[in-house]
Amino acid sequence: MLNEKNVNLGKVRSAIRELFEYGKKRKAEIGEDKVFDFSLGNPSVPVPAEVTKILSELINCGDPVALHGYTSAPGDYNVRKTLADYTNSQFGTNLTADCFYMTCGASASLTATLNALLNEGEEVLTLVPCFPEYKVFCEHAGGRFVAVDTREDDMQIDLEKIRQALSDKTKAVLINSPNNPSGVVYSEKSIKELAKMLNGFSEKRGSPVYLISDEPYRELVYDDSIKVPYVMNYYDRSIVCYSYSKSLSLPGERIGYIAVNNKMEEWQEVFAGICGAGRALGFVCAPNLFQQLVAKTCGITSDISVYKRNRDRLCAALSDYGFKVVKPDGAFYLFVKSPEPDANAFAERAKSYELLIVPGDSFGRKGYARISYCVAPDMIERSLPAFKALAESYK
Amino acid sequence: MLNEKNVNLGKVRSAIRELFEYGKKRKAEIGEDKVFDFSLGNPSVPVPAEVTKILSELINCGDPVALHGYTSAPGDYNVRKTLADYTNSQFGTNLTADCFYMTCGASASLTATLNALLNEGEEVLTLVPCFPEYKVFCEHAGGRFVAVDTREDDMQIDLEKIRQALSDKTKAVLINSPNNPSGVVYSEKSIKELAKMLNGFSEKRGSPVYLISDEPYRELVYDDSIKVPYVMNYYDRSIVCYSYSKSLSLPGERIGYIAVNNKMEEWQEVFAGICGAGRALGFVCAPNLFQQLVAKTCGITSDISVYKRNRDRLCAALSDYGFKVVKPDGAFYLFVKSPEPDANAFAERAKSYELLIVPGDSFGRKGYARISYCVAPDMIERSLPAFKALAESYK
Repeated sequence: MLNEKNVNLGKVRSAIRELFEYGKKRKAEIGEDKVFDFSLGNPSVPVPAEVTKILSELINCGDPVALHGYTSAPGDYNVRKTLADYTNSQFGTNLTADCFYMTCGASASLTATLNALLNEGEEVLTLVPCFPEYKVFCEHAGGRFVAVDTREDDMQIDLEKIRQALSDKTKAVLINSPNNPSGVVYSEKSIKELAKMLNGFSEKRGSPVYLISDEPYRELVYDDSIKVPYVMNYYDRSIVCYSYSKSLSLPGERIGYIAVNNKMEEWQEVFAGICGAGRALGFVCAPNLFQQLVAKTCGITSDISVYKRNRDRLCAALSDYGFKVVKPDGAFYLFVKSPEPDANAFAERAKSYELLIVPGDSFGRKGYARISYCVAPDMIERSLPAFKALAESYK
Repeated sequence: MLNEKNVNLGKVRSAIRELFEYGKKRKAEIGEDKVFDFSLGNPSVPVPAEVTKILSELINCGDPVALHGYTSAPGDYNVRKTLADYTNSQFGTNLTADCFYMTCGASASLTATLNALLNEGEEVLTLVPCFPEYKVFCEHAGGRFVAVDTREDDMQIDLEKIRQALSDKTKAVLINSPNNPSGVVYSEKSIKELAKMLNGFSEKRGSPVYLISDEPYRELVYDDSIKVPYVMNYYDRSIVCYSYSKSLSLPGERIGYIAVNNKMEEWQEVFAGICGAGRALGFVCAPNLFQQLVAKTCGITSDISVYKRNRDRLCAALSDYGFKVVKPDGAFYLFVKSPEPDANAFAERAKSYELLIVPGDSFGRKGYARISYCVAPDMIERSLPAFKALAESYK
């Protein structure tokens, strides 16, 4: 009688949340320091000091009516202009303020984009493993979520699998790099090949396929040799969904943007669709205070060296114990191969060592588990004997 | 090829925005102080001093990881508990934290609620005049927006009109009091009668009609004798959509809530539907900093005495000049009867006196125009000769 789909969606807790809640309970039982919770992707590093300073200045020195007032729906013009200029300086693009639509974070970026592009029944090819909510977002927008596997070993783009999945109904390909949950950064070579294939397919079919790039982890890469290719430089019909949640450690404040590539002929139509979708979804505008903040912190990130040290320590130790891990170039996740075929059983066994890790099934890849290493370094140190014992239990 | 509905929605600027943009251009031409812009509902009174103080304290003294981190999807538990306790103390309800879902403002409150309740084709009876976006929200949620006129003279609830509009497809009645654009507060008597009628209808039909009350202007009433009835005390199947945009003058920060009446049997199902809708729409959580803020400012509002003085001055003067106005009990709008049948022509003529007022057509009531008096008092003083000349031009 109510909207059953949404009622069910509201009742089912995600596997990640379920585990997090279990962790809280377990900590109360046996002590905070006895449980090793690797379940959530909540940044453990605080906002940079500049963020606190700039927020203070904005709040205390600005005109409060302008600061806390509505911005236009796509966002404050000066903020969008600043972000366009910064993006151009970084990636050699030629974007203007009018290509930018400020949002309440990455999820809002995705729902507005999908609602702008999709008509009933159109398909979104999504590379898996991926963030489980993508499916929810596609379906609410009237689309069909089509999971396309990445390669088994290194979880890089599998061009042949995408080719097989392309159909008359394909409206977009959705990628996320650095990837949640694998930490993989898709290589420049694979992005080039993907672009070539999508261009060929679009031309032959006579209607375009869009490339949506979800990039909340863009800055979280840990080796100088790793570059995250900027999709706009490889594919004209591309849309970048960005969020400051991870780069500035403010996931609870909901601030991000959509950037529409103005190299595509119909970019203004796409932008209008995003504006319309934003209205229909009820977004009005992105939080003004945080719009002003991000325009003043271009190029600044939280201290991501903590995540790098966590990754290096955990990767080395787990490999040492005999676990197989996908090489994580970025984000703050480690995707570890389950020593038994059923990753749910593996995660259950890990629990008995007080290790909370998330089975990969909900990310669309069986046989793996996700370890979020956005945690205090000392928790990693304390958890290593448990990981070692877990590995030994399989020998 | 793109989603045509959303593209069109993104291209059409609302009548209000159109006028506001014209005003900016006109000011550049003839001078800031020569144009009297009454188009927007953007609070002109700054946030209370407490808001600035508390925001500063939160930002500088709290743990930044917790302060800027994700809250659970319905919001921080302690915040919701505080709002429940405060609401109970004000209205004698018996709500708990679990009845509250924090949102990114009133529009988000409405889209989440509508997406929780509606199935394809179900109808939402909406009392007009009303905020034009209601139609957009209903339709995106798959519902049908059905405008139901209020009384011609005082714009109070017209029970008979609602009775005639009720059908097998009616899922909800949507009200907004104090009303945008009329400023009318629906009387306790009419809310009682509406509740009685909806209960009777629901029982006879064998399935419930919900009452959605959009209340961003709740605190903005200017006479001690005027009380805004709290719908939960009159109708069990009621849902309150609230926003702090107007009461605390921070419309750009996007913070509000949905409160589900726990007197209805299925309140937890409705709440689950709201949680699911919030997920599907891409909301994740309401901005954490502003969640913390509103829990610390219960009962505080901006200095609304400015609006009262504006209302009194404008009402008296316009009546004096011969305009007929609907008595505004609250909000910050004056709904003035057009001296000619076509309010668009009236608003056009007003423009020639540099008065920017919005024709009522887009609010679903022809023959009226909306004057937003959330403006600087001195602009009202300076505008009066223009209003007088406008009135005289019709004599």
